[in-house]
Amino acid sequence: MNKKAVVLLSGGIDSSTTLSIAKAEGFDLYALSFDYEQRHSRELKSAEMVAGAIGVKKHLIINFEMNQIGLSALTSDIEVPKSQISNLKSQIPVTYVPARNTIFLSMALAWAETLEAADIFIGANAVDYSGYPDCRPEYLRAFEEMANLATKVSVEGRLRFRINAPLLYMTKAEIIKRGIEAGLDYSLTWSCYDPQPLDSRFKIQDSRPNLAPCKKCDSCIFRARGFKEAGIDDPLLSPFEQSG
Amino acid sequence: MNKKAVVLLSGGIDSSTTLSIAKAEGFDLYALSFDYEQRHSRELKSAEMVAGAIGVKKHLIINFEMNQIGLSALTSDIEVPKSQISNLKSQIPVTYVPARNTIFLSMALAWAETLEAADIFIGANAVDYSGYPDCRPEYLRAFEEMANLATKVSVEGRLRFRINAPLLYMTKAEIIKRGIEAGLDYSLTWSCYDPQPLDSRFKIQDSRPNLAPCKKCDSCIFRARGFKEAGIDDPLLSPFEQSG
Repeated sequence: MNKKAVVLLSGGIDSSTTLSIAKAEGFDLYALSFDYEQRHSRELKSAEMVAGAIGVKKHLIINFEMNQIGLSALTSDIEVPKSQISNLKSQIPVTYVPARNTIFLSMALAWAETLEAADIFIGANAVDYSGYPDCRPEYLRAFEEMANLATKVSVEGRLRFRINAPLLYMTKAEIIKRGIEAGLDYSLTWSCYDPQPLDSRFKIQDSRPNLAPCKKCDSCIFRARGFKEAGIDDPLLSPFEQSG
Repeated sequence: MNKKAVVLLSGGIDSSTTLSIAKAEGFDLYALSFDYEQRHSRELKSAEMVAGAIGVKKHLIINFEMNQIGLSALTSDIEVPKSQISNLKSQIPVTYVPARNTIFLSMALAWAETLEAADIFIGANAVDYSGYPDCRPEYLRAFEEMANLATKVSVEGRLRFRINAPLLYMTKAEIIKRGIEAGLDYSLTWSCYDPQPLDSRFKIQDSRPNLAPCKKCDSCIFRARGFKEAGIDDPLLSPFEQSG
């Protein structure tokens, strides 16, 4: 029997690559996504497509009302900033969502305990987005320590939880190369915080929503830079580029 | 301006007493409850009544689908055990819910960061219910440490989160005496895991649901023992006792 892993999956590049790495490492996969009243649910659609393509035992999408307890540009009416990347080294981005990874990892921990899965995977990255406090190695270590004091299976000595963050020290270009190596189709992923209705000229021919990335938000810019540095064309953009 | 505190509130004796203690300590109160598909919502009604009686700035009830990720007698179809107390010292009760306090504290942390409230209160108790791993002091310390690495306000040095568990070393009798001292009306609280439809003879005269405690589940037995040891009649039971 394979080992089980719970993998946090947003549908973006990092979490999708993480899922493909866990697959390559031989885990039975249990993907966990959240519908927390994001401005758009386009990335959840990508999470479903990626989970289907990689092949997971189960994909769970949990609904909860994040808006009530935390505010950020991703969940509220604050305008998504364009091209704030130059500020990222000196401050925490406004797209930070209070305690988001802690909430996500807590739910992953509950599911992992129920499944008796020792391994939890998260696509945290401390290089490109170093501004997020809950993507740093010292945070992840503290969460792991807490998790092993929190749970019945660990306190009884039956399981020791590991928080795996295989992308932690990779650049975006390295992440993309690693995902392609693992067979991930990046046209299924989604990064844009601010999707735009798509001109009918570019209508996508499959079941995907007719939306295009804005190419201006931080997340689009990081994605474009990553593909450029990896020397690879972003397959998500190619239908529009070719038609346009 | 008063200090702010986020207080986890289930509507039971421990969390209601914790709320009354935080009130007595002069905090502005933000009560946080969860609707996670409990078998009954009777205790949420008590949470609302207690929050109203004590006087909170805001009471938030968050819905989420706990059933999907964790199974226990409180959220699934496993039968609630009767009189399992004698086993509690040697094993973790079947009423344990995977990572429940970790999920609750994570959501409290998110709200606390949004409010810039340094203090989070939880009614964890390591005496009567020593079987729960996530009620132990070492767990609460680990969560606090993780929380201060997780959040923007703490990493920027503007706030240091404290997890307050004022009941940690109190017996149930001591908890009840402390709550009465703080002016808490225990007839508003609820403990029973398995509420029974109430005989029409005992119809309650106010807006409360027409339900009576079963008096047989662990939680009813702990409650009864606490009131007995405190030398106080449980005001929740008195209408039924008098009529019966």
